[in-house]
Amino acid sequence: MKNTFGSSVSVTLFGESHGAEIGTVIDGLAPGLPVDESFIAAQLTLRRPAGKISTARREADPFRIVSGVFEGKTTGTPLALLIPNADTRSGDYTRGAFRPGHADYTANVKYHGFEDYRGGGHFSGRVTAALVAAGAVVISALKQKGILIGTHIARCAGISDAPLGDLSVDLPRLNSLPFAVLNEAQGQKMQLAVEAAAAEGDSVGGILETAVTGLPAGVGEPWFDTLEGVLAHALFSVPAVKGVEFGSGFSFADLRGSEANDPIRKDPEGIRTLTNHNGGINGGISNGMPLLFRCAVKPTPSISKEQLSVNGLTGENETLQVRGRHDPAIVHRARVVVDSVTALVLCDQLAQRFGTDWLGEAGI
Amino acid sequence: MKNTFGSSVSVTLFGESHGAEIGTVIDGLAPGLPVDESFIAAQLTLRRPAGKISTARREADPFRIVSGVFEGKTTGTPLALLIPNADTRSGDYTRGAFRPGHADYTANVKYHGFEDYRGGGHFSGRVTAALVAAGAVVISALKQKGILIGTHIARCAGISDAPLGDLSVDLPRLNSLPFAVLNEAQGQKMQLAVEAAAAEGDSVGGILETAVTGLPAGVGEPWFDTLEGVLAHALFSVPAVKGVEFGSGFSFADLRGSEANDPIRKDPEGIRTLTNHNGGINGGISNGMPLLFRCAVKPTPSISKEQLSVNGLTGENETLQVRGRHDPAIVHRARVVVDSVTALVLCDQLAQRFGTDWLGEAGI
Amino acid sequence: MKNTFGSSVSVTLFGESHGAEIGTVIDGLAPGLPVDESFIAAQLTLRRPAGKISTARREADPFRIVSGVFEGKTTGTPLALLIPNADTRSGDYTRGAFRPGHADYTANVKYHGFEDYRGGGHFSGRVTAALVAAGAVVISALKQKGILIGTHIARCAGISDAPLGDLSVDLPRLNSLPFAVLNEAQGQKMQLAVEAAAAEGDSVGGILETAVTGLPAGVGEPWFDTLEGVLAHALFSVPAVKGVEFGSGFSFADLRGSEANDPIRKDPEGIRTLTNHNGGINGGISNGMPLLFRCAVKPTPSISKEQLSVNGLTGENETLQVRGRHDPAIVHRARVVVDSVTALVLCDQLAQRFGTDWLGEAGI
Amino acid sequence: MKNTFGSSVSVTLFGESHGAEIGTVIDGLAPGLPVDESFIAAQLTLRRPAGKISTARREADPFRIVSGVFEGKTTGTPLALLIPNADTRSGDYTRGAFRPGHADYTANVKYHGFEDYRGGGHFSGRVTAALVAAGAVVISALKQKGILIGTHIARCAGISDAPLGDLSVDLPRLNSLPFAVLNEAQGQKMQLAVEAAAAEGDSVGGILETAVTGLPAGVGEPWFDTLEGVLAHALFSVPAVKGVEFGSGFSFADLRGSEANDPIRKDPEGIRTLTNHNGGINGGISNGMPLLFRCAVKPTPSISKEQLSVNGLTGENETLQVRGRHDPAIVHRARVVVDSVTALVLCDQLAQRFGTDWLGEAGI
Repeated sequence: MKNTFGSSVSVTLFGESHGAEIGTVIDGLAPGLPVDESFIAAQLTLRRPAGKISTARREADPFRIVSGVFEGKTTGTPLALLIPNADTRSGDYTRGAFRPGHADYTANVKYHGFEDYRGGGHFSGRVTAALVAAGAVVISALKQKGILIGTHIARCAGISDAPLGDLSVDLPRLNSLPFAVLNEAQGQKMQLAVEAAAAEGDSVGGILETAVTGLPAGVGEPWFDTLEGVLAHALFSVPAVKGVEFGSGFSFADLRGSEANDPIRKDPEGIRTLTNHNGGINGGISNGMPLLFRCAVKPTPSISKEQLSVNGLTGENETLQVRGRHDPAIVHRARVVVDSVTALVLCDQLAQRFGTDWLGEAGI
Repeated sequence: MKNTFGSSVSVTLFGESHGAEIGTVIDGLAPGLPVDESFIAAQLTLRRPAGKISTARREADPFRIVSGVFEGKTTGTPLALLIPNADTRSGDYTRGAFRPGHADYTANVKYHGFEDYRGGGHFSGRVTAALVAAGAVVISALKQKGILIGTHIARCAGISDAPLGDLSVDLPRLNSLPFAVLNEAQGQKMQLAVEAAAAEGDSVGGILETAVTGLPAGVGEPWFDTLEGVLAHALFSVPAVKGVEFGSGFSFADLRGSEANDPIRKDPEGIRTLTNHNGGINGGISNGMPLLFRCAVKPTPSISKEQLSVNGLTGENETLQVRGRHDPAIVHRARVVVDSVTALVLCDQLAQRFGTDWLGEAGI
Repeated sequence: MKNTFGSSVSVTLFGESHGAEIGTVIDGLAPGLPVDESFIAAQLTLRRPAGKISTARREADPFRIVSGVFEGKTTGTPLALLIPNADTRSGDYTRGAFRPGHADYTANVKYHGFEDYRGGGHFSGRVTAALVAAGAVVISALKQKGILIGTHIARCAGISDAPLGDLSVDLPRLNSLPFAVLNEAQGQKMQLAVEAAAAEGDSVGGILETAVTGLPAGVGEPWFDTLEGVLAHALFSVPAVKGVEFGSGFSFADLRGSEANDPIRKDPEGIRTLTNHNGGINGGISNGMPLLFRCAVKPTPSISKEQLSVNGLTGENETLQVRGRHDPAIVHRARVVVDSVTALVLCDQLAQRFGTDWLGEAGI
Repeated sequence: MKNTFGSSVSVTLFGESHGAEIGTVIDGLAPGLPVDESFIAAQLTLRRPAGKISTARREADPFRIVSGVFEGKTTGTPLALLIPNADTRSGDYTRGAFRPGHADYTANVKYHGFEDYRGGGHFSGRVTAALVAAGAVVISALKQKGILIGTHIARCAGISDAPLGDLSVDLPRLNSLPFAVLNEAQGQKMQLAVEAAAAEGDSVGGILETAVTGLPAGVGEPWFDTLEGVLAHALFSVPAVKGVEFGSGFSFADLRGSEANDPIRKDPEGIRTLTNHNGGINGGISNGMPLLFRCAVKPTPSISKEQLSVNGLTGENETLQVRGRHDPAIVHRARVVVDSVTALVLCDQLAQRFGTDWLGEAGI
């Protein structure tokens, strides 16, 4: 299965940037979960480009749910959700040079030229709108079970945010912010840096850091469905993500065991670790501490500076200047996509572990 | 499926550190692949502890293949391979304090105390011997199709190896080295640093960098089975891997699009990129350039220094000193595990893409 | 995965009888397959109720493809197709007594009362319209590769059709008939018998017999994905199918080995068997002879005769008289659903065996 | 995945008739299930040939469990079990004519001649010993949860057994019988008929009828993982099974809806149906009534009568007389294989529905 992820709870994606509609099917949801359409709309707003640091393409994303919800609650059968593509300007796109850093060339090889090349087609970040809508359904359900997910822009254009502190404060706050940083001043600097890059026809990358609280211990597998593995598998679907690390991640390389091991202590609330270098996962299985991971987001490949490439029709070398409306950064928009993917993966893991009704038990 | 990975070509792992045997079943192999038992043995030797910088546990790994090979070649039906556990000293292990950094606590929660706790049981790095044996079968087959995989210790105990250069030279050389570094002097420094940590009852971490040449363009999926995603999924099963990045990975965060995009050029050999920041993958699909990725390996959690923990039987806090034979570093041993996992994932991807016979076509 | 079937080529179903739309996502299709919307419409017509022997519910099924097709051909990325529900009379349905023979009670237990009960909801035969549309896409593609599928009503209301004869004549003929029988006179008797049952407020069952020609030898697996197993798995999703047999099926019970074994002979066209008791499959793998299988279809459970049941709201016994528009037989409508399911399964098997491009190779 | 079946609980098979060992890996078992090796041995005895009506090949099946069991109970990690092949006489088999009714030809096409042809290799019924051993582990666990499975030889060599009556009596009784019939006199006739066929160098077929009591309502899916579909998928792996029907199965063809629908009634024990034409399944989901299904078993293809075939080496027509030791019937031996497959499928379904611990809860 290619465009479907998950076992007990699965999500399927379809659609192209310039097709009629994009959409998603979420299957295996517990019956009886309240579906709050205004929350879905709010999450889509977080993903939608806004302000000077995003593409000028603006769409209200008037999604509609065509199955799987009855009288405001999930039925337990597949929930299909569609989002029309309203503001498409296909004229901006012609089959021409393969855009460097994009999937144009690889799609062309894989699909033998039959791919819908307009605006990146099925590879477009546009498809993440469906993913965010799908995620919104389960983010609410996880919240009801005490599981909270939040992501901040840990770094953007070379500027760092403050580190995560008290998660019970930081996560709800981040989830309410359109530009998710803990330190507002640093966030201002990031946005100015993005604008500066945009002014030069260029783009910037960044790092997203995610935390999850309330996940029970005992979720995940030793081989091969480690919690790290299944999360990373899904996270690499978020366009532009090129690295995923858990806990201390690449910093582990320079630590000693005595520094890296998290001491274990019993306290009144149960068994915890005094540090969380392992990001809440040991041996592939959650240990009850907050999940912590970071995603590297490469700079948006769509830049208006001149680039070298090959023409897809003629096969000849040429110089390319990408037109169309583009994002000088996507790290701030990708943040809600990362949250959504995380929520979908965790729902699946929890349903596998505790059964298909577990997520809905609060309401049953 | 938990301990099985892959769709067209799948690998299943079983066994515990102190059980009778560990083993693997590889299913979906093309028929007619030569199975070179001496190469399997050689790969197992690369994984096996050796010298001062590894555990004193030594096993000859006298594996045996019990199915799926007939007259020296794969039959196309499941290949099962078993490795007896010879040198087990279970007396070294008793159910006591949860070892920090290990899976003892998470296994205890997940399996309700029924887990085989001796030596980490099914979570033990010992199980990677089966993974290496499985990988050896397909590494040979990939080589016949011109696909070469190699890994070096890019960093260990804070010391860096030289960067990868000409892969046609470096990969074969790395595959012949017991301690896989490009710069021998740096390798010596790493080993001394490991010995120094060991002398203090401590351990060190590192980074493994892998390259794959010869992989055809067009392999992988946009969502969710991106080549990054499926590789990362499997790589996080390698014990102690806590981060995976492709191409420029986390360095992308500080690059601009104009630096990060790989210019595309047509040359006599086909379409290539002038740089390889994307590590051979665009939009989740191979682009014909070398695959490049790095795995962060945390320091071995087994250290002999005193640590704080909780006793698994009494549930009370206590101070723990881990006994038994341990590795002060595993990064040098994990390298062949990473190669093996990579080979298994690529075989599966290639069989999905080109059919179940493809890998064996050279011999059919 | 629940509402998704297949590995290399997969199909996902969603929607309810009285929801806004039903639909399907087909993933993994070879790129470049021509998509003939008029053929899809024609197949939907074969499934659609017509005449006196079907429900009075009539819908034109104005499907639309929202992704995966570009310039008239498959792109290789997911094809999503939606069919609006036009002629719904939800007023006919209220949550009342569980209808005997239907899924009302089991859905109620499984989904804890959150299921959309109207018209059977997601369990409705209505959803097979999406399946037929999905099947139509691949039936055309298989035809281009010389693989032909056809089904006749072998038995209905106790009346038998003539046996299959020369498949190169029978299959194309059956595919053009609205009521798929080889012997027209027997078909007339069947229809009269259905009308007679309808007049009594009752319904009838039957048997569908399917043949597939042109399937290459070597497709299927010994364990567990036998060709019989994967076909049966999918065929039991066709509502009312309660039995599947291959070749001589249940008649094998009374045969001897010397009668049941198919003698093998070499002739100018290759290796064939003189008889086809095994229905084209040995050891779970196709042998190059026509596939032959039969599906038992139970009588439509919706009858207007009085029945005993339990009220879903009160939990009390009551007498039920099912209202609404119903089919006194579905065997004649199910025939195109069986063809569609068969085509989807074979596409998946062929793509697994020969790679993802195989089905489209004619056009590439 | 080919030789692996199941999602939450999966079983993998490997081995060949004349290889060193056959075996199985069961993954996803709840931790804490008691593993009774004497029950495994007893189940293997039921499968093992005995008396005049079976092959002269006799093996004690001295299985060994090499992982996944600790201190007599399942650990929750993969249970691997191996059975050596002791009494192999490979000399009886040479690559010669494809045996009609066997997989020799299809294996040869699929595996390009690299298959282990000796004794049917991986296609051999011998591999079902591993399946029976795997099944034995879960049959015990299901029994602890009140779920009982039993099968009788409903028909053999044209002779019928008595119908199933009170399942609470019949199932335990059948499970204790080496030749599983309800009517002993009919069983004697069957055995005489098998001997008569054997004396003529021929073989006979039959029908196995299985019942399952105690399965909770609400297990299974509407599309595509209907309980019928997943059971049939696995049952068609039992060698020689060519048909599977549920409840009234093919008899539904001649029933009317008013006869076929099972009236629903509330009684003190809950909601039940007065008849069980649907075999305990509506809309693909268990309804709390006993599961009832029947498998058609074709006559053993190995007969000593002369048959027409093609030589696998020369490609020429020839007359074949199969040598070696063969079963004139396998229906009586297949019965415990059917029980085992059923148990494995139900465990998987229950674990998907209620979580991975459910089956072990009695012991946790």
